[in-house]
Parts: sequence; structure tokens; C-alpha cells
Amino acid sequence: MVDVIDVKRNGGELSPEQIQFFIDGVTDGSIPDYQISALLMAIYLQGMTDAETTTLTMDMLHSGDQLDLSDIDGVKVDKHSTGGVGDKTSIPLAPLVASMGIPVPMISGRGLGHTGGTLDKLEAIPGYTVEISEAAFKQQLRDVGCAIVGATGNIAPADKKIYALRDVTDTVDSIPLIAGSIMSKKIASGTDALVLDVKTGSGAFMKTEADAVALAKALVTIGKGVGMNAMAVISDMNQPLGNAIGNALEIKESIDVLKGNGPADLVDLVLTIGSQMVVMAGKAPDLASARAALQSHIDDGSALAKFRAMIVAQGGDGDVIDHPEMMPQATHEIVLKAAKSGVITKMKADEMGIAAMLLGGGRQKKDDQLDYAVGLWLNKKVGDTVTAGEPLMTVYSDQADISEVEALIQSNIEIGAAGESVKLIHEIITD
Amino acid sequence: MVDVIDVKRNGGELSPEQIQFFIDGVTDGSIPDYQISALLMAIYLQGMTDAETTTLTMDMLHSGDQLDLSDIDGVKVDKHSTGGVGDKTSIPLAPLVASMGIPVPMISGRGLGHTGGTLDKLEAIPGYTVEISEAAFKQQLRDVGCAIVGATGNIAPADKKIYALRDVTDTVDSIPLIAGSIMSKKIASGTDALVLDVKTGSGAFMKTEADAVALAKALVTIGKGVGMNAMAVISDMNQPLGNAIGNALEIKESIDVLKGNGPADLVDLVLTIGSQMVVMAGKAPDLASARAALQSHIDDGSALAKFRAMIVAQGGDGDVIDHPEMMPQATHEIVLKAAKSGVITKMKADEMGIAAMLLGGGRQKKDDQLDYAVGLWLNKKVGDTVTAGEPLMTVYSDQADISEVEALIQSNIEIGAAGESVKLIHEIITD
Repeated sequence: MVDVIDVKRNGGELSPEQIQFFIDGVTDGSIPDYQISALLMAIYLQGMTDAETTTLTMDMLHSGDQLDLSDIDGVKVDKHSTGGVGDKTSIPLAPLVASMGIPVPMISGRGLGHTGGTLDKLEAIPGYTVEISEAAFKQQLRDVGCAIVGATGNIAPADKKIYALRDVTDTVDSIPLIAGSIMSKKIASGTDALVLDVKTGSGAFMKTEADAVALAKALVTIGKGVGMNAMAVISDMNQPLGNAIGNALEIKESIDVLKGNGPADLVDLVLTIGSQMVVMAGKAPDLASARAALQSHIDDGSALAKFRAMIVAQGGDGDVIDHPEMMPQATHEIVLKAAKSGVITKMKADEMGIAAMLLGGGRQKKDDQLDYAVGLWLNKKVGDTVTAGEPLMTVYSDQADISEVEALIQSNIEIGAAGESVKLIHEIITD
Repeated sequence: MVDVIDVKRNGGELSPEQIQFFIDGVTDGSIPDYQISALLMAIYLQGMTDAETTTLTMDMLHSGDQLDLSDIDGVKVDKHSTGGVGDKTSIPLAPLVASMGIPVPMISGRGLGHTGGTLDKLEAIPGYTVEISEAAFKQQLRDVGCAIVGATGNIAPADKKIYALRDVTDTVDSIPLIAGSIMSKKIASGTDALVLDVKTGSGAFMKTEADAVALAKALVTIGKGVGMNAMAVISDMNQPLGNAIGNALEIKESIDVLKGNGPADLVDLVLTIGSQMVVMAGKAPDLASARAALQSHIDDGSALAKFRAMIVAQGGDGDVIDHPEMMPQATHEIVLKAAKSGVITKMKADEMGIAAMLLGGGRQKKDDQLDYAVGLWLNKKVGDTVTAGEPLMTVYSDQADISEVEALIQSNIEIGAAGESVKLIHEIITD
């Protein structure tokens, strides 16, 4: 192992055998944590070639089980986001795309820190369970066409071990390590095609667009290397996505999208990613017609019906579609107002995410309990004009005193004389 | 700790409080190994400023006990080598300098890998013990004037822990980490002045002269920072030092030096370092007169008498001076001959050290047992002319079949048409 560390420490390229030795040793526990973490730091600082990253990914994939979806008809299409604030895209997207007859097998994660998690949000729906068997998952894909669940079985155990160490050794935001972690799990999930939503900005792991593009290219390269149809959308995460931040609030907003009255940015992202998925699945000849078809499935209620069917299939109460107030409700609704008039020039995504976390809607540590009811509902976003005293947002809280959260929010919103236009979709990466 | 790692990972400077937090956590065990090793790799790749290195050294020093030699008269002068092959310099040097009335309190180490250790060599002398109490050590300094012993008490426990992790995480040859490790222990030993023999070349940690100079400057800077009179000699370790490699063989060669018939390079290094020590102790006005005085103490036998007194004081049999054959003797003496005529252009120090280790004279792992009798005695060195069939060296072995060792040796000696001159002392670093 010291020889393996030595190669990377000196800026060299690890051989496939060396990467295999490393991942085997991580998986069977024969390499001690202190050597794993020394190599992780060397990888962080020296980087990895595309070939090394692909080998790492495949070895992490083979360290555990793989889902075989070949007995499900159609081109299976999945979507993965690198995580952000207010990013509930997957929730309306899965039933919307499935309403086109495309199987969407979505294995999602939980939130930590300022970012929320798709599974946490869905669990705000009474009865909804994300832990279902592999057989039930496949049956639901056949019957309903989409499912959003947690990982089952022993998926990429080497990644699990490495991820835990990265978290405590400050080696999280390394492009090859992120790429290997995401793609080993996505390849294991058995999807045929994948759209990656790589976030960039203050609320994302990748703060700069250059880093986001580099990560996107790494992800797409790995996907194509194993014969998966993969592409990436670079989307903005300088401010929160949509208006809702918080678990039940984001489910409500997801329902709004499928009812045709979602916020413009979220709807745009859902349709942008969704039309890529439809074209990948061969259900439309081009993006414009795919987008029109998806819009018609919102307009005719078939996407909303699919969402209801998915909820019911996973044990949830489908009435939530008509009665979002069935979900936990906060005891306090506090309206925050603009201190002065002008144009909103900044609303920092990461700090809004932390505000929601501090209210109890997110986790500071992995085993924190969540309060599904709490969060923020934004009335204004970057580029909007406000007058002094006008509502900026509503804070949903289960505690009366929100002075700390309010201070955090106010200090991370800037109101200036004139705003710049906001660009939601920065780039599309297809190879 | 993640915040501390973050600073160094990003190439920043750690604050004194952050370094203190790190060393405290290493000492009390509250920082897990995987975080220590991630920081060590970040330090390895990002480096440390002089201020950081000095703080690290002082915190490691204060993690354990310090020896107080203030009740011993005179300027105490010590010497430390960064380690090499055939480097027995300390053994004749300590009694030679002590014969000038200068206290030489030498705390030495053991060998590992291709490098030998002073303590191992001395233990080839029947009865000689390197483990003596602090009181006995000080009494010997008063009575004899010199002692070469192992570390007693709880010296720099943080360094011990860090050193063990560096060994298994490929972060050994980092200048700030080496400098901190050496100097924390040397400051703890209570010496007033110190000459550092920094080796450069194939058999040294520092392969290039630039690295050796950088390490020497780091060591001297730390020493001067705590009021110690410190300087460094950069000396060659491309080929072994002297003619003997192996524990008993090196004791015999040390005796030869003090009898006035040591090999030229070893004698030169002993006198070069020794004269610096004499001047530092204020026992001579300049290097030339110091060197002359030391030579006279070899010529009149007083240095040899001092060596005998030191051996006896530490429980050894002083007759070894007249009868080196009292030490363990190898059962086989095999003469290796030159395959062709020419000038020796290369005799790789590290590989000669490994040859001696493979014979049983060194340790591959920390708890390997040593065979004191075995080793190499060189008849020729770099720059010497040889004719085909002429003896190159004698291999002292306790096994009859030395084919593996012989192949290693022969493949690491080059005989060419013309040789370059060898420079033993590369540089003197005084600040």
C-alpha cells in the first residue's frame, strides 16, 4: 500500500492493478484507515487521469451488488443531481417522464448540512416508504413506471467506506473521488441512460463553473465508458431553486409543478432535464417536441396522476395531491420583509439551506431527526424588484423565536440598485 | 481537525493554536489516525513555513520529558546524522571530542532498512548496554565525558506516534516533518551545541544536494530559534562511508580510526565534524587548530583510551580495543572480484546497505533480530582503479550461499573507463 501511495504522492498514474489492490483492501478491511486517508489526500492534491477515475469507479462498483433491470421493458432513464438547496427537481420529474411510458428507476439519497435529500422530502408524505425490496421496486417500475427509493442491498460498499473517511479528512470536493462515488452507485442501479444535474454556485460542491464542467465531463466520460447513455446539465445554485426550502414545503411545490403552477426556474429545469430524458429514451425525435409532450402531460393531468400512483404504490396517502396540508404543518409562520427598496442582487443558496437546517428541516449530523414541517417559502428571488416593507419570504417554524435564523437570512440577502439577469442553465455537456 | 486539515490542504499556513491542537490531540489520542495521516500527506505535499516547522518542533518537544544537563560543567556538544550506509562516524567521534574535555551527551538510534544504527553497532561489543538510567548517563558524562545511549524516559511521544504513521503512509521524506522529528528529540536531550551531518546521495533520505541543503537550513533554523548553537555539514552518501558495513565490522573500523589507521574518507569526516564541535565548545580558536588538536589526540592514544573508558562505563569489555575478534565473527568470508579492469564509477550506497541487511546485519522490520558478525568490507571505492580479478570487497556471511547478495552487489557497482573525483564534504551550513 505504501508503494501505491508513493505513486500518487509523486504525481504519477496508478495502474489498474494498484487501484484494484486499493479497492479490494478497502472492501475487505485489510488496508487500515490511516493509509486509505493518506491516499485520499494524495488523490485530492495530485488528481487522477480519466483512465484512473474510470478504473476506480468500476472497482468500487464491483465491490458490491448490481441491480439487473434488463427484464424491464424500455429504455430505463435516471437523473442524478450533485445536490443543492430547494432542489426537489427529481420529485416532479420522475412521474412526469414516466407518464410518457419511460421507466424511471430512481435511487436517491438523504440530505446533510445545507443540502436537502429527495428521500427525506418524500417521507414528509404520510405513509410513504423509501425502503422497499428489489422485487417490489421492479414490480413498481412495471406497474407504475417510476419509483424513488433508497439504496437496497450491498451497493458499492467500498464507496461507503471511502465516503465516510472523505467526510472526516477534508477530501470531499475532489472531482475524481466525487465522480467515482456517484457513478459507481448509478451504474450499480442498472439504468440505461442518465442525465446528471451538476450544480454550480455558492450552494453547490462545485463553487465555480469551471469545476462544475470538469466534474460533468468526468461523470459523462465514465458513463459512456461503460456503455451508458450519459449527459450533463450545468445548472445554477447561487440562489435556491424554486421558492420552497424544507421537506413538506418542497413536496407542495412539486405538486404545484405538476398542476401547472410551479415557479418558473424549477419548471424550466424540470422540462430541460425531462426533455433530454425523453429524447434519450427514444420517445421524441428532438428536444423541442419532447418538451411540448411533457408540457401536455402537465396540462392534461397525466403527470400528476402518475405522481399519485407512485405515492400510493410506495404506501403513501395519495390524497396529499389535493390536500398538501395533510403533511406536517409548522406552528409559526413569520413573514420577513425587505429592509429597503431596490433589486435583489444576492440570496445565498448555502446560507438559506443552513437557515432551513437550523429550523430543524435538515441534519447537522447524520443521525439528527428531521422536522418535516419547517422551512422557507420565498416570495422574491434574485433579479426581483422589492419595496421596503414588502414580504421577502415566509419562515415556517416550530419555535417562536427565530432571531438567529432571521439574522442569518437577512445578512445573506443583498438589495442593490440594479440587478444582473440570472442564468439557470449554464451549459449542456454531452461528451 | 477537519478545519486544520483544510488550511494545509489549501496550501495555507497553520496558526500556532492549530499546530498545538494537532500535537495535543496526537499526544492524548483524541485525533484518530486517519485524520493525522491526512494532515501528514497535506503537509508532505504543501510544505510548511519556518515558523510552522519551529512551532511543530516545540510542541512535539513539550509533548514529553526533557533532559536537564545544566548541572554538568562545560559546553555540551552533540552530533546527529540523518543516516546512511557505513556511517559509524559518531562512534570514534564521541570519545575523540570528549578527550578534549568536552562533554558529549549522545542519544542515538537504531537502524532500519538499508541504514545502520549506532546503538546496534555498539551492541556488537560484548556486554555493552545502551539502556542506562538518566542518573547513570549524567554520572558517566561527569566521569568519562561521553556516553552513547538510547533515549530514556518519555521523549517526544507525539513524534513517536507521528513517526510510526509517516512510515506507513509514505510521508517520511518531508523536510518539515524530518526537521521537527530530529530537532524535538535533540532539544529534549539538553545539549548546548549540535553539529548536524546531513547526508545526500543515493543512500540518504535526501537524494539531491538541494534537498539536503533545505533540510540542513531547516534544522539549523530550529536549533538557533531555541538558543542552541547549531550548524550542519552536508556530506556525501552516494557510496558507503569508510570501508566497513555491518555492526562488528564498523566497530573494528571505528577502533582503526582512533588507532590512526582509519580509511581516509571516514577520518576526514570525523575530523571535519569534530573540529566544528571543538570550536563550538570554545576549546580551540579556529577549525585548523581544533583539527590539529584532535589529530594529536589520535596520535597520542588519548582518544582511544577515552573510547575504552566509555565502553567499560557502559558495561562493555574494554579488551575489544585490542582484540576486535572478541566480537561475533562470521563463518564465511567470500571475496568478490572485479569482473573487468577500469575505474570504479559507482558503488550505490543504498544497495550496499540492503546487501548487508539481507546478510542479516540490518532490519527489514522493526523487530528483526540482528546478526552482528555479517557485512561487507570494501577494498575499493569510487575513483579507485581496479584490474579484472582484483578483490573488490570481502563479504562476511553466516550462510554459504550468497548468490542473491552477490548479484545485488555486482549489479550496483559500475566500472568505467575514467572516474570523476569524489567530493566528501559538499557544504557547510551555519545559518
